[in-house]
Amino acid sequence: MTPHNDNTAALAQALLHPASIALYGASDDVSKMGGRPVQFLKRTGFAGRIYPINPRRDEIQGLKAWPSLQSLPEVPDQVFVLTPTDTVIPAVRECAALGVKVVTILASGFSESGTEGAAREEELRRIARETGIRILGPSSLGVVNPRTGLVLTANAAFAEPDLPPGKVFVASHSGSMIGALVSRGKARGVGFAGLVSVGSEVDLNVGEICAATLDDPAIEGYLLFLESLRHGPELRAFARAAQRAGKPVIAYKLGRSAAAAEMATTHTGAIAGEDDIADAFLKDMGVARVGVLEALLETFPLARRIPLASAPKRVGVVTTTGGGAAMAVEQLGIRGVVVEPPSAETLRRLEQAGLPCTPGRVLDMTLAGTKYETMKATLDILLTAPEFDLVLAVVGSSARFQPQLAVKPIVECAAQPKPLAAMLVPDAPEALAALTAAGVPCFRTPEACGDAIAAVLARRQPGQDPVLPASGPTRTLSEAEAYGVLDQLGVPHAPVALRRFDEAPVPLPFAYPVVAKVCSAEIPHKTEVGGVLLNIGSDAELAAALATLRRNLDECAPQAACDEALVQPMQKGLAEVLVGYRVDADAGPIVMLAAGGIWAEVAKDRSIRLAPVTVEAAREMVAEVNALKPLTGLRGKVRGDLEALARTVSALSQLALKPEMRIAEAEVNPLLVLPEGQGVVAVDALVFQRSPS
Amino acid sequence: MTPHNDNTAALAQALLHPASIALYGASDDVSKMGGRPVQFLKRTGFAGRIYPINPRRDEIQGLKAWPSLQSLPEVPDQVFVLTPTDTVIPAVRECAALGVKVVTILASGFSESGTEGAAREEELRRIARETGIRILGPSSLGVVNPRTGLVLTANAAFAEPDLPPGKVFVASHSGSMIGALVSRGKARGVGFAGLVSVGSEVDLNVGEICAATLDDPAIEGYLLFLESLRHGPELRAFARAAQRAGKPVIAYKLGRSAAAAEMATTHTGAIAGEDDIADAFLKDMGVARVGVLEALLETFPLARRIPLASAPKRVGVVTTTGGGAAMAVEQLGIRGVVVEPPSAETLRRLEQAGLPCTPGRVLDMTLAGTKYETMKATLDILLTAPEFDLVLAVVGSSARFQPQLAVKPIVECAAQPKPLAAMLVPDAPEALAALTAAGVPCFRTPEACGDAIAAVLARRQPGQDPVLPASGPTRTLSEAEAYGVLDQLGVPHAPVALRRFDEAPVPLPFAYPVVAKVCSAEIPHKTEVGGVLLNIGSDAELAAALATLRRNLDECAPQAACDEALVQPMQKGLAEVLVGYRVDADAGPIVMLAAGGIWAEVAKDRSIRLAPVTVEAAREMVAEVNALKPLTGLRGKVRGDLEALARTVSALSQLALKPEMRIAEAEVNPLLVLPEGQGVVAVDALVFQRSPS
Repeated sequence: MTPHNDNTAALAQALLHPASIALYGASDDVSKMGGRPVQFLKRTGFAGRIYPINPRRDEIQGLKAWPSLQSLPEVPDQVFVLTPTDTVIPAVRECAALGVKVVTILASGFSESGTEGAAREEELRRIARETGIRILGPSSLGVVNPRTGLVLTANAAFAEPDLPPGKVFVASHSGSMIGALVSRGKARGVGFAGLVSVGSEVDLNVGEICAATLDDPAIEGYLLFLESLRHGPELRAFARAAQRAGKPVIAYKLGRSAAAAEMATTHTGAIAGEDDIADAFLKDMGVARVGVLEALLETFPLARRIPLASAPKRVGVVTTTGGGAAMAVEQLGIRGVVVEPPSAETLRRLEQAGLPCTPGRVLDMTLAGTKYETMKATLDILLTAPEFDLVLAVVGSSARFQPQLAVKPIVECAAQPKPLAAMLVPDAPEALAALTAAGVPCFRTPEACGDAIAAVLARRQPGQDPVLPASGPTRTLSEAEAYGVLDQLGVPHAPVALRRFDEAPVPLPFAYPVVAKVCSAEIPHKTEVGGVLLNIGSDAELAAALATLRRNLDECAPQAACDEALVQPMQKGLAEVLVGYRVDADAGPIVMLAAGGIWAEVAKDRSIRLAPVTVEAAREMVAEVNALKPLTGLRGKVRGDLEALARTVSALSQLALKPEMRIAEAEVNPLLVLPEGQGVVAVDALVFQRSPS
Repeated sequence: MTPHNDNTAALAQALLHPASIALYGASDDVSKMGGRPVQFLKRTGFAGRIYPINPRRDEIQGLKAWPSLQSLPEVPDQVFVLTPTDTVIPAVRECAALGVKVVTILASGFSESGTEGAAREEELRRIARETGIRILGPSSLGVVNPRTGLVLTANAAFAEPDLPPGKVFVASHSGSMIGALVSRGKARGVGFAGLVSVGSEVDLNVGEICAATLDDPAIEGYLLFLESLRHGPELRAFARAAQRAGKPVIAYKLGRSAAAAEMATTHTGAIAGEDDIADAFLKDMGVARVGVLEALLETFPLARRIPLASAPKRVGVVTTTGGGAAMAVEQLGIRGVVVEPPSAETLRRLEQAGLPCTPGRVLDMTLAGTKYETMKATLDILLTAPEFDLVLAVVGSSARFQPQLAVKPIVECAAQPKPLAAMLVPDAPEALAALTAAGVPCFRTPEACGDAIAAVLARRQPGQDPVLPASGPTRTLSEAEAYGVLDQLGVPHAPVALRRFDEAPVPLPFAYPVVAKVCSAEIPHKTEVGGVLLNIGSDAELAAALATLRRNLDECAPQAACDEALVQPMQKGLAEVLVGYRVDADAGPIVMLAAGGIWAEVAKDRSIRLAPVTVEAAREMVAEVNALKPLTGLRGKVRGDLEALARTVSALSQLALKPEMRIAEAEVNPLLVLPEGQGVVAVDALVFQRSPS
């Protein structure tokens, strides 16, 4: 074992399997936050040693109380600090001095509460850094491991009389949600292998905590409740390792509406909080991002059955109710999953077996009546039909009182190689429990059904890990230098001629009309200083234009160092797009393709991926931008060179693998898309380069 | 009472309160469809007289069986025909001959099954028309009235041991869904005042059935499950009457994805099936359209508390859990409902009372702990704060085991004048039941919460009823005639000069450059015949252009009668839009405002309302079209005359009140939007007029 693995194992042990825990500031009053953990731990029969710390009492809820951490007969593996904010730092220092491995902090009042709080938070970071103690929180409601009765939490929902253990591990930014998930899971027969309220992640964060548990064989998958995307590198490392370990990760992330993003984003800036960047990050890291809360509980059995792959997955639907199936098909369709009709061969097999064989997208067994034999034989055929990667059975009223008719055959097919999922139209909790117990992915509502299936199918195989330059100050390149960067990457741009303002005119290497632009690293926004002149038609006009540019500079940007203009032929494309690369604070390097001009803003018409992307992935991005649809030949329009566009997006994204170029950000805007076969051409570019380290 | 009211009352009585029912083709075998109604009726203790009809048996499930309808001692109020398709017509004829009021048909195999089925359906229509018997179905799973034990259905879900009666009436295109709603409602303490599976609506349809029950004082609201929008006029009449009666209507309608629309749409064409038209219809008729299945059950208590009004409604949120509230705020935000923060005055009142008073959009009581007194006092202040029209309380873990802390004060505030709703984050069925029993709108998931609130707030006050010309054949008007129609409506268009091909040139009343277009009712698509010439700069060029047009016509449209061209000045706007009016087969007259050109297609960037619309409603339409956002002055762009655009949309929509103009359809495309203060101008129009009747 490497030291890293040692540390990881020790962290997982102290966090989820502590032999001893201390409750700093435990209360005898079970109606108080500080009284809950002792109550819960006693009730669930936690087998480890429990040390309530309270200098004012001899006994807490029947357990011997200890006056201080120092007075304990051993160093506890984990300490839960339940006392108010102003006592937290001394308590954590004490824990660190004793050699406690993990300290969990319930109190809030740190960086979210002004300067004083931020100073307290910085002090916690310093203690962690200097002593090696690991801190969970602040604002953590604690840690729960239903497998060992470790209910080390102040969350009232854990008054739950019994907590069924399960296969998935939960890490949540919201402490309240671990309670909600336990209660909602219980109602569905879904248990957990552990739950951690990560609080404000001053030290331990979601990615690191989850990664520490990856070797635990009882943990087969992960649910994340994220308020925003933060600590991206650790989350990325975890997601990649989870994928290697074959343990699916499912996430619910807030921030799809501006108001919720505003509520959730306390640590990151506005740009970092953009939800479509987080969305790209999660999908590109193979995480199934669900949008319906209940789907967070329902997706795991499906995610473990469907491998990540580049080929699109085809879903077949069979139903005992037309209306119910229509709802499922609708919820899939809204999310871009189009249901595949049975093939002619499959219909032939059904017909030969005397089974219902209806036309249309969905195999509708309504008219045949709901019978065990019919359903079983139909499922057997559908689950061996090559046109489906997943079969969804929608079961109507019979699911409630007669599960032996249509639910039983589904349970019996659970072990077949091809995955089978079920959605139940009536309220049928017993049938859901039976399906869940058999490991069949099953859904209580059409919305969660559509959401879970779409989320699982939208996961992408993680691409190459980026290799980034050392961080440091950046400088803007001039447009001419920026083209040099594009040249290195193989991004085509319009030909360039540089003309000094003080030189005699030299003939251009290309024909008029041309555009002349001031060229200086100090003037990134040229139009604002009157630095762009269009439609220059002759040598004489060019000379005049150069003089005008010089004059405009003197007037609008007298301080800027600029002694030349960049001249290019005027060009027009079928469409203008923006292609950008940058290193996002949370998601890491991303590449973006967006509709040009005001459309990008008005319609948020853009596609984002983690960089680098292959040409294949870039083709998907091109297909996602609405403004490019007319360029596919729609309504007889001229087709654009979308293949060259995909190559260019991929080429720019390779910056994520070229640390030696030291590019922090590069935006080609506009990139003209020319007719099919004629390529694309950059006619402006803005590049920020890091200083050599 | 008018004869109409007599008929309506008789229909409601026979349908929901029959004194006697016959089950045509009843089976002794309870596992068969035909055996279920007798089983269910016996179990629920239906008080009316039940006549099983089966010539092959003396007894059916312990009841005397009758050999035929004629042999019965009375004419039953309603007959449920349970026999196969080919026996249906004779059975219905027999019912009609006896004077049965309502006959319900279980079998399918009518218009959805080819020519023979269509003929059968036509025959049913003929019988209904000629005899006055009312037909429910075919493909109807029957009628249920939990108030009287009338469980006259073949839906297996009604094996339900007891059906709680409730206040809402359900009409469903899907028979399976009435069972699903009953079971799901039961799990939530929601009962029904009646449920009807309307089947394929050969005679009785959703609107007519619901309208017939409006006088029933026990029915306080309506839930509709619609596969598509059909029988619009009856639905419209019902919605309007329901609104007058103060009985809210809530609808779930399929068709938001193409695949589901394809499944659901069997009776209507592709255009009629467009979901945004149906959506406009429902909202404009004051119907709350939900998109989440569970919201169909949860919306009624909210809808009855919030009046339809034109002023936007403001929602305040208070919570005992940050994460839970963020989910609710997110689901509202996604649907366009922005949560209103408490005012300074409200914060002052909270502070004075020593209550939690957190900054931000949501009042977060997490830190104060969850206590009855705090919650009650806070709600009392929020429910008298003038900045809120609705308060939503989001309750965390305490809702499960300690409803006395935060749920009880919500129940106690149920009778306050300002509506209060609740969302529970954990699984807390008992708290939900208590809230439901108290009439508090309450939600089990953030998705249903956001959906229900948004749906209720999106309802619009129904506008004027349209007055339409008699239907009949239509003819296309020439562009010149179309401008005449626009003149009558007050829709501005570019000046027009007509020039005959065979006349000597006459000076134009406006300056060059101009455009010349062939002008004929027989050539609606001018560009396809080379019939449009742009940028004509002088008298000589105009003469040449007229000759060219003449030549193009001879080549491309030699049969078309066309002897003149329409000449207009060349004009350019800030944006081009399409404004259209037409009479939709299902929704009735609609007005549409759409982004011009290919954008309308690519981004479905359009807004639709039932016609006529006021200028105020048209302003909302303008705000809904993305392509018009740059014209609001975004990023320093020139502002467009959006006020003139709204006036024009309203003006065109007045066609719905001018039957004397006999216009079936009018499309202005493009309409140029000029800079603010300069108006809008139509530069092409296509109008279809009905023949005089």
